[in-house]
Amino acid sequence: MPHHEFALIDWIRHRVANHARLTLGIGDDTAVLRFPEPADCLITVDMLMEGVHFTLAGASLERIGRKALGVNLSDIAAMAGQPLAAVVAVALPRHGGWEIGQRLHAGLQSMADEFGVALAGGDTNTWDGPLVISVTVLGEATGSGAVRRGGAQVGDWVFVTGSLGGSLTGRHLDFTPRVAEALALQRAVTLHSMIDISDGLIADLGHILEESHVGAVLDSAAIPISPAAASLRDSRSPFDHALADGEDFELLFTVPPSDGQRLIASPPFATPITRIGEIVPGGVCLLRAADGTLAPPQVSGWKHGFDG
Amino acid sequence: MPHHEFALIDWIRHRVANHARLTLGIGDDTAVLRFPEPADCLITVDMLMEGVHFTLAGASLERIGRKALGVNLSDIAAMAGQPLAAVVAVALPRHGGWEIGQRLHAGLQSMADEFGVALAGGDTNTWDGPLVISVTVLGEATGSGAVRRGGAQVGDWVFVTGSLGGSLTGRHLDFTPRVAEALALQRAVTLHSMIDISDGLIADLGHILEESHVGAVLDSAAIPISPAAASLRDSRSPFDHALADGEDFELLFTVPPSDGQRLIASPPFATPITRIGEIVPGGVCLLRAADGTLAPPQVSGWKHGFDG
Repeated sequence: MPHHEFALIDWIRHRVANHARLTLGIGDDTAVLRFPEPADCLITVDMLMEGVHFTLAGASLERIGRKALGVNLSDIAAMAGQPLAAVVAVALPRHGGWEIGQRLHAGLQSMADEFGVALAGGDTNTWDGPLVISVTVLGEATGSGAVRRGGAQVGDWVFVTGSLGGSLTGRHLDFTPRVAEALALQRAVTLHSMIDISDGLIADLGHILEESHVGAVLDSAAIPISPAAASLRDSRSPFDHALADGEDFELLFTVPPSDGQRLIASPPFATPITRIGEIVPGGVCLLRAADGTLAPPQVSGWKHGFDG
Repeated sequence: MPHHEFALIDWIRHRVANHARLTLGIGDDTAVLRFPEPADCLITVDMLMEGVHFTLAGASLERIGRKALGVNLSDIAAMAGQPLAAVVAVALPRHGGWEIGQRLHAGLQSMADEFGVALAGGDTNTWDGPLVISVTVLGEATGSGAVRRGGAQVGDWVFVTGSLGGSLTGRHLDFTPRVAEALALQRAVTLHSMIDISDGLIADLGHILEESHVGAVLDSAAIPISPAAASLRDSRSPFDHALADGEDFELLFTVPPSDGQRLIASPPFATPITRIGEIVPGGVCLLRAADGTLAPPQVSGWKHGFDG
């Protein structure tokens, strides 16, 4: 490892706070995270690439650092887990790598501090390519267990937190992972299934339906459209943005009707919760219009991933 | 996430074997790894970048996949830990991404199978840039605890497994992480400190000395030079290659003299173990020549990491 990469690691090492569960942090061959009781350890990784997930012109490095950790915290939230520790691998552009590393770290550290997450280690590299940052987060399921995508049952009510669409106007960088909300939900009700909305409401609901072997009917009028989506002036309606934009990092979950009634009667936190539909037999998702007619959602397809 | 990335993940998902400790694998927001008892969870991450750590012309994708996991298994070995699970984030070149992903997976899977490691999840991306692969491995310390860099004591004997130098001729891609050897060593003796040799013997011994606040004297004649280093015909001697090349992925460790004698008398495995020196007071490393004279090692410096 080149000398300046060691120096950057050393600089970071002296800025990272102690954490009760981290018995060994930056500076050895591995970090050591203590599980004092039998545990279900949650593991998730996300890689952000310059030019794909962000541009250096479009976002500060601190915000990119926050997002790189935040998207993983959102995945831990989707299991109703408690995040514990993160390791960070970066490919830093050779030119300006030192400052880039420091500013990324500042963003990562601020998000880590807000959620009680230990920055436990990493791998620092430089090259002549674009900035790449890969963050792995470890968490822990609560005593009630990790909430999966595959547990939705016919009759469940479908809920989302917050409002949806238009995240590219800024929210995709400046969101609050719904960790506290997910833990509060799991204390309050029986969560049959849950996912965070990263690919878009319809796509992520599709994951729940596929894994649970069920269908869903959503009430079009009930879907909460974000102010950002409502203010967009482009070829797609605010409603379509809410269905398909993605990177909302809100929770999408299903609960038994009695629990759903309870959530509406006494919400367990200030973040809005909206009932948007119910789980039905069959494998498809349908939208119910104001006049009661049912139709499949018309959302734009996915971009092609590979050339060949 | 684009459709073809989902398809690749689905392809991989149906090729990944079950693992006793993995209660939830690919296909949810996080993986779930079960720790049935209180545990010290080991975490390590390494990122390999095309053009920096490998070239597609110089190595098959299968070997790159094996290396990407293997370097992390070597880090787990350095703590005398048992590797359990890996998550893999990749940036695939858009052109040919599907085949690249499949062949990388084949390499990762073969190495994972050899070491009983679960491929637990990942993040698949495509872009117009070079191939980047970031692997995070989780392991578990044994009941004897994780072996750190910082425990070397004055009087300890210094050992290495295998032989050193010349890894660029092939071994840096085709090495066997010393997981079994590390576990056998910990059963056989008291390991005061251990590291794997990735940066080079002198550099990695330097990490042990720095963290342990001790020095070392190495016997020049004792350092095991690999056949690859011995066969190199360039400006540096085979001895210098053994000191500085790095990516040997052998274990460097220190034990009390009585344990050292025992290791030499009855080695716990077939991989060679060589006593190369002893720990002394002070913070420096010295080489002892055949005539008994002491001098600091003359190894080439580090390449510059950043431009500015």
